[in-house]
Formats: sequence, structure tokens, C-alpha cells
Amino acid sequence: MRRFLASQAKGLVDQTRRHHHKSRLFLSPLPSLSSPPLPNPARSPLVSLSRFLSSTSDMSASDSTSSLPVTLDNINPKVLKCEYAVRGEIVNIAQKLQEDLKTNKDAYPFDEIIYCNIGNPQSLGQLPIRFFREVLALCDHTSLLDESETHGLFSTDAIDRAWKILDTIPGRATGAYSHSQGIKGLRDTIAAGIEARDGFPADPNDIFLTDGASPAVHMMMQLLLSSEKDGILCPIPQYPLYSASIALHGGSLVPYYLDEATGWGLEISDLKKQLEEARSKGITVRALVVINPGNPTGQVLGEENQRDIVNFCKQEGLVLLADEVYQENVYVPDKKFHSFKKVARSLGHGEKDFALVSFQSVSKGYYGECGKRGGYMEVTGFTSDVREQIYKMASVNLCSNISGQILASLVMSPPKPGDDSYDSYMAERDGILSSMAKRAKTLEEALNNLEGLTCNRAEGAMYLFPQIKLPQKAIEAAEAAKTAPDAFYCKRLLNATGIVVVPGSGFGQVPGTWHFRCTILPQEDKIPAIVNRLTEFHKSFMDEFRE
Amino acid sequence: MRRFLASQAKGLVDQTRRHHHKSRLFLSPLPSLSSPPLPNPARSPLVSLSRFLSSTSDMSASDSTSSLPVTLDNINPKVLKCEYAVRGEIVNIAQKLQEDLKTNKDAYPFDEIIYCNIGNPQSLGQLPIRFFREVLALCDHTSLLDESETHGLFSTDAIDRAWKILDTIPGRATGAYSHSQGIKGLRDTIAAGIEARDGFPADPNDIFLTDGASPAVHMMMQLLLSSEKDGILCPIPQYPLYSASIALHGGSLVPYYLDEATGWGLEISDLKKQLEEARSKGITVRALVVINPGNPTGQVLGEENQRDIVNFCKQEGLVLLADEVYQENVYVPDKKFHSFKKVARSLGHGEKDFALVSFQSVSKGYYGECGKRGGYMEVTGFTSDVREQIYKMASVNLCSNISGQILASLVMSPPKPGDDSYDSYMAERDGILSSMAKRAKTLEEALNNLEGLTCNRAEGAMYLFPQIKLPQKAIEAAEAAKTAPDAFYCKRLLNATGIVVVPGSGFGQVPGTWHFRCTILPQEDKIPAIVNRLTEFHKSFMDEFRE
Repeated sequence: MRRFLASQAKGLVDQTRRHHHKSRLFLSPLPSLSSPPLPNPARSPLVSLSRFLSSTSDMSASDSTSSLPVTLDNINPKVLKCEYAVRGEIVNIAQKLQEDLKTNKDAYPFDEIIYCNIGNPQSLGQLPIRFFREVLALCDHTSLLDESETHGLFSTDAIDRAWKILDTIPGRATGAYSHSQGIKGLRDTIAAGIEARDGFPADPNDIFLTDGASPAVHMMMQLLLSSEKDGILCPIPQYPLYSASIALHGGSLVPYYLDEATGWGLEISDLKKQLEEARSKGITVRALVVINPGNPTGQVLGEENQRDIVNFCKQEGLVLLADEVYQENVYVPDKKFHSFKKVARSLGHGEKDFALVSFQSVSKGYYGECGKRGGYMEVTGFTSDVREQIYKMASVNLCSNISGQILASLVMSPPKPGDDSYDSYMAERDGILSSMAKRAKTLEEALNNLEGLTCNRAEGAMYLFPQIKLPQKAIEAAEAAKTAPDAFYCKRLLNATGIVVVPGSGFGQVPGTWHFRCTILPQEDKIPAIVNRLTEFHKSFMDEFRE
Repeated sequence: MRRFLASQAKGLVDQTRRHHHKSRLFLSPLPSLSSPPLPNPARSPLVSLSRFLSSTSDMSASDSTSSLPVTLDNINPKVLKCEYAVRGEIVNIAQKLQEDLKTNKDAYPFDEIIYCNIGNPQSLGQLPIRFFREVLALCDHTSLLDESETHGLFSTDAIDRAWKILDTIPGRATGAYSHSQGIKGLRDTIAAGIEARDGFPADPNDIFLTDGASPAVHMMMQLLLSSEKDGILCPIPQYPLYSASIALHGGSLVPYYLDEATGWGLEISDLKKQLEEARSKGITVRALVVINPGNPTGQVLGEENQRDIVNFCKQEGLVLLADEVYQENVYVPDKKFHSFKKVARSLGHGEKDFALVSFQSVSKGYYGECGKRGGYMEVTGFTSDVREQIYKMASVNLCSNISGQILASLVMSPPKPGDDSYDSYMAERDGILSSMAKRAKTLEEALNNLEGLTCNRAEGAMYLFPQIKLPQKAIEAAEAAKTAPDAFYCKRLLNATGIVVVPGSGFGQVPGTWHFRCTILPQEDKIPAIVNRLTEFHKSFMDEFRE
């Protein structure tokens, strides 16, 4: 079976080179479209290429002779089908390199691994916002609130906030399971934060607090997808949580392409075309995913475009799944974040006629509290009986973690002018956001200076997604190495520089184009060295493969 | 559709009364076995009764005329099928009562709602272990470690432990995503704790840290279940996470009955019988779930019995899914907790020939840190390629929350003799466990004193699961109220006393028998009042319905 996949993989790479037009499905050069059928895992045309490639990377691991009951042949094929490149093969290689670096420093042309693969700011030295951590510590160890020394150690408003939060928790028990949707008082705070942001009412009963945004996305996919006949319109390129979650829940990803030439623009005409094509194949499209600001593409949608998207969903009977986790991350003066809730309400669409789920997370923004796993979804425009089902799904896992819940309330209600922490909080916040903007600009310019690379600006989010025109000889070398060409480039980059980026194939891209995603998150003092190493590597790579 | 379900529900209750023998499937009186087929949600014979009952409780909520895209008819039927009684209808009623009590105190014969429905100790006044919370606060707000006042506020070993933990986290960044399986240093600590517990080696690479045990269970179900042709052997009664998770992932629950007459004994002969019966129906049974100490049944397995279970799984090629979250909760001198890992290893079964997943949680034990959502699974006896798939599934959600990860390491490595906190820690721990034992005994005796009630002892865990012989007139009244008889009893109990317990039908029970689950968790000073109210209610209930 492994050998079979290996030869298929080679075939796929061959085909990839021959398909240079936009395809109807985001990874057209796939076996079920143009090759003999593969066994189970590949039944759907929406499997991504790299699964077959990465399966071949460890052929010695076959355990077919063991007496163990679980094998690749008898597990859920949806699991096999699922992909998550952000923590995929290249990251595994990087982790091994990092381990080896400890004892074997001289063997490498670099001192450290720089993880630009994932939006994980604090792993790269960003400090947490002090006010948030003060409140968390006081809520964790509440007897601090009875000690006089505490007033010297904590800001007054952190102490006040901790009391206020504890007063909303029955018995002040931060160690108890909460209501399945999260602590009511925290949801009140979040709803008030949404109202202040949008200028339209928000209902605390619409808020479902979750362990980061990912479980919320899974919950909606599980609700909406019954079989591969149910489809979800997803941007290509996309954050692979969506393709992974759709695969795990057995639905079909219906791709729509963001237009790189217009700064990753979203064309309603393309949405319509893809929707109709999916329908003609018997797929019932249930929802449209929009990631704004974009991941991995970094664009910020214009309000007019958002209105068209809302009208499209309304007209076509689609749920709008709005990934708005980067709402605080906008870096250019000519763009502004507008929530889809605000856009829909200002068009007059409301609870009775427009189904919208907005995802938010404590992992992004200026706070970057990834390890806390806090987040929420605001669920509007669902009938009461369907909402009961969502509540039931939330109940099966009891509740999300309370520290994450508290943090989600804090990011939607940070210190205000006059508060003890306000000045220092604003300095931390603005320092982080302006530095991110600077880093985005520097990296974007550096990438655009490289031969064969073009990079749209990062208007928001935390990523750049440059396109790289690879020489034919590099593509052939990748093929010989049984690797997708962009993965080949990224592996070479890692081995030469210690910089970890993710191949575009993990996000989806127009067939025949190659990209990688690079975060803007290394600290400012590291950026010049990264630019130098990247530039030097790229030159030598191009020299090696130039025709 | 709602009206249709309502009349079906009535039919189900009628049938329930006629089926008083052990059934091949845990809820035999179900439509697909003996009634005309219901639409989608009821396609499988393993749907539970209460879904149809609760659907009828809110007939006014019909939104069929709305223009919203999502309806009960077009969501994933697996979601409809899923049940979670621990937070089901009775808890919803209780929450409404609690809300109403605030303003309408005189309308009720009780002052407060006492939640005995869920193992949530801190919601009922149990205090967190101080050492654990000190370490968490220091890891949340690490700059405390630089302040001199901290030494007056925190114990020395908590400060040492916080430093030790921070040193294992790259960059000391508790706000960063960790390795998908959890921070390696914490997994080292947990593996060492398992080794100390069992006397057999444990590998940190086998540990997957999760947001409580529930996501770990979901992950294994998602891995093992491809369709309803895949089955999981589950105890009846069971903790409804299992039935819910099997339903959500589209598999079949293959029930085996615990024998109430022998203190909820687990008979290998019954396992064999159920396995063979399932196989004869074309179901491939993938795993056996064992909950030890038992939930909701409170029994602690004997080592000899555990050996037989291990041998049975080995022989039949089943994964053993060992729910061991109550491993610290054993209350009787004649029983002791033995991990299945230890039992398997002492039989000579190891990594190469025995697939075992053990689940642990920070929510139970003497710590009861439910709100922190920490836990882990130890995965042994899986081939490396299958483990890669489990790793990938863990990666899709990035990682579990870091506070929960830290806490999981703390409960597996608490203060040791000589540590600054040791004496106070032991006093807290022993105080909680001995009080739990006392409360279990008092409640068990009180229940056994009631007419028609018999209750096995709670050897461990946090629950009593008494059987109640309901008078025929009560069963008829339940039928008239379109409610299962045990739910009828529990609702009456709630309305008369404010005490919330969960009907046995939420856990599964031998058809024709009725039970409820009651936690042992109210604080000791509340127990006499609970016993009085329960006794008084029960007498008047029996007087009302006595024939």
C-alpha cells in the first residue's frame, strides 16, 4: 500500500506540471479526477496532494506484521484524509533539527530554528499584556485578594476586575465547570464589547465560549455536514483548519479562489460560479467561510465587498462562517476591520433572516495568548431548536477552560481611560501592533526584492504569502525527490537557514503556482538577519536551478 | 414532524412498560426494533428514548416559517442522535428555577438548588488545593517571581516548581501554543508519575495532553469509527460521554451490562456474548470501554477481573479504552485502584501486542479542578503510522490549554515529604477524600432506608446510582406526562426539594428498571438537610402513587 501511494505520488507531481490552469477543485491534479482510483482515503477529489507525499516519507515504519488491532487500513478514512500543514512534515523536520542543534551546533549553518510557520507570537518573544495576566493570576489564586501585599504587586484595576469577574462566577469557583456556553457574566461583558465595536445589539445568549476558535469551527462543521453531499464554500488559499475540519466531518470543500492579482480579492462572480458548479454535481452548499483579515493571505476586505458577500449568502441560503480572529490586526491606514455582524445589521438583515457565526480567539490580535486556548463564537440567525442542538454539542464537552473564558472577556473589554493600567496597557498594545506593521512592511519589501518572488502587502493578520516562480529545473528536482515543488523550496530553506515556513500547497493555491506562508512574528531585532539569510539562500537556490 | 415525534414518544413509553427483560441493545424499546421506522434521527437502534421525549417539550418553538437556512431537518442527523443527560432537560429546569428563586423566593418550598447532577466539586464549595493554585498563578503572571513580596505570599516549593515548569517551556512562554501533544517537560513529569504509580516504565511520547478527558475520548472515537458497522463495547450504565461521542462519530454502541446484584460486577461471559452478537450482525467491534472506578455506578474493579478484561481484549483484538479519571477516588479499605497499564504489563502484554488508552483528568480526584480543563491520555500499543494519525488529529486543534497542562503535571507529581507545602497539602487532600467517603456512606445508607430503593455502595468515584422500584401508578402518571418514569421521579424531586439528580435513562439501565445518579459532592454540613428533604419527598411520592 505504501509503495502504491509512492508511485501515485510521483504520478501526481508529473500531472501537477501539466495542469497550469485554474481548476474547478482546488487541487485538481488529483487521482480521482484524472488517475485510476486510489483506495478509501482518496475517494473524494478534495484530498490534498501532500498527504500522499508525506505518507511516503517513512517507509521503514511499516508495522504490518504486528499483532496490534489498529492499522492504517482500519481507521476512519476521514482521519487519513485530513491534513494540517501548519504543523506538518516541515515542522517535524524543524523540531528534529532543533533537538540536534543542542548537541551538534557545528553541523549547521545557523544557530537556531526560527518558527515562521505558525501565528504563535509569544513563542517568538512577544510578552503577554500585563493587565490580562494580573487578572488571570488573581482569579487562579483568589486568596491573594485577601493579602495586603497584593496591592503593591498588582494594579488597582486588575484587582477590581478580578473581584468583578469572581462575583459573576457562582461561589467564585474558578475551578468549577461553568454553564456549557461559558460563564454568563463573562458573556455579558463580551456582548457589551461586541455592541461597542459594532454599534448594534449583541445577546450574551448568542455567545459560546470555546477553547480557542478551532473547536467552535469543528462544532459548526459537525452540525452542518452530514455527508460528502454537503459542501462548504472555502477560500483558496485557506487556513487549513477548514479543510481539515471539513475532511474530518466528511463533507466537501467547495473552493473559491482569491484573486492574487487584485491583492487577494474576493469576487462574488467566482463565488456564484463555484456554487453553481457544486450544485450541478449534487452538492448542497451549506455555508460560506470568509477569513477577514485573511489567513494566509493578509488582505482586509472592503465594506462594499462585505455587503455583497452578505447579500450573496442571504440570497443563496448559506450560513456565513466569519473567521474574524484577526480583527485587531490591521496595519494599513486605508483599511479598517468591519465585522460581518455590523455589515449585515446595517443592511437590515437580522436574527430572523440571516445566519451568521463569527469566530473570535484570544490567540491573535495584539495579545497573542495562544496557550490559553480562549475564544468564542457568536451565533445569530439560527432557529431555537437548532440552537438547542448547538447547546447540546457544547454540553458534551462540558465547558471551555475558565482562564480562557476570562481572557476572552478581557480582550473584549480591556482597560479604559482613567484606569490604573490604562497608560501602560496602551503602550504595550500600540507597541506590539506598530511593530507588527513595521515587520510586515520590511519582510514584504525584502520578499519583493527576490528574483521570481512577488508578495502582496499584509494589510492585516500575521502572514505574508508570496508567490514564487520556480525554475523548471527546481520543479524537476522536487519531482525526483517526490516532493511538491513549494515543499521542496521550503525544506531547502529550512536546511540552509533554520527558517520554518509552510508550503502553499498546505493552504491550497491555483494549480501550477507555488507559494509559502511566512509569519511576520519574529521580534524586530531578528528581522534583518532573517532578511539576510533568506536573501542569501534564495540567490543560491536560484543559481543552482537557473536554466 | 414535532407532532409526529410526540405521538411516537407516547408509543415508546407504552412499549417501555411491556419490555421488562434484558435486551440485546441497551434501549430495546426503540422504534427501529419494534415500531414503524422514524425519520433520519432514529435510523439506528441505539438512539435513546429521551431525545424523543425532550423534543416534545417545547412545541411552541417551531420556526418552520422562517427564512433561515438551517433547520432540524437539514442538520447532521448524528448530532440529533447524540444525547448528554448530565446537562439535559432536568438541569435546564433547575437553572430556570434558580433564576426564578432570586426574585420569587416564597413560591418554592426550598431556598436553593443543590446540583447533584454532575461531578463538579468546586461548584458545591470544595476549595482548590492551595499548592496547585499557587503554581498556576506564578506561571500565569511570571513577573511575580521577580518580586520580593512573592516569598511572603507563596510557599517555597510552589515558587521552585513554577521555575522548574517555566524552564521546560521554550522561552518560558506560557502564552504560546505548545507541542501538539503538550509541553515535553510536563509530559516527562507525568510519565514519571505514572511510573511511580505502576512500577512499569512510561514514555512521555505516549502522553497526549488534552482539555480534560472528553476531547481525548472524542479523538479515539473519531479514529476508530468509520461507520455504524464499527462498534464500541460500552458498559451499561455508562457515562453518557461515551454514547454521545459514539453517536456523534457515527458508530454503534455495543452494550454490556454491569450486574447490579453483584455490586455492578463486570462479567467476561457477558462481554463475550455481546461481542459475538454484535459480530453476528456484521458489526466490527473495535474497542472496549471500561470505567474504573465506575461512573455512574461507583464500583472499583478487582485486579483479577482486570486481568480477565485485559486477556479478553488481547484475545479479541480490541483496543482497551480505560477511563481512569477517578483513580484517586477510592473510599473502601477492601478495594484499591490498579491501572490497566500496570495489570497489562504485569501479565507481560506490552507495546507490541496490546493496545491500551488510559484517560486521566484534573477534574476529578481530590483536586476537582473541572474548570481548568486539563487531562491526558496515555496511548500505548499503536503502530507508529497510526500514532502519526493521532498526532495529526491533536495538531488540528494546535494544543490543549497550558494551565490545564501544568495542572495535569501537578496532580501526577504533588508535593513530597519535606516540601514546604507537604503538610498542608496532605491535610487538604486527606480532608477532602475522607469527607467524600463519609458523605458517600451517609447518602448510601439514607437511600437504602427509603421504601423501594436499593443502593450499592460507592466504593469509588463520586456517585451513587440507586435503583428505585416505582409503583405502577407512578409509571402511568409518567406515561400520561410523556416522560420516562425515572425522569418523572427526578423532576418531582427537583420541584419539591431543589435537589438535582439525573435519571438512569441518561446512562442506560436494564429495561424495566429505574435509577437515578446522585453525586456525593454537597458539603458535609448540607448532607443532613439533603437526607431529610429526600426522605420526606420520597415518602410523599410513594404515598401519592402507592397502589
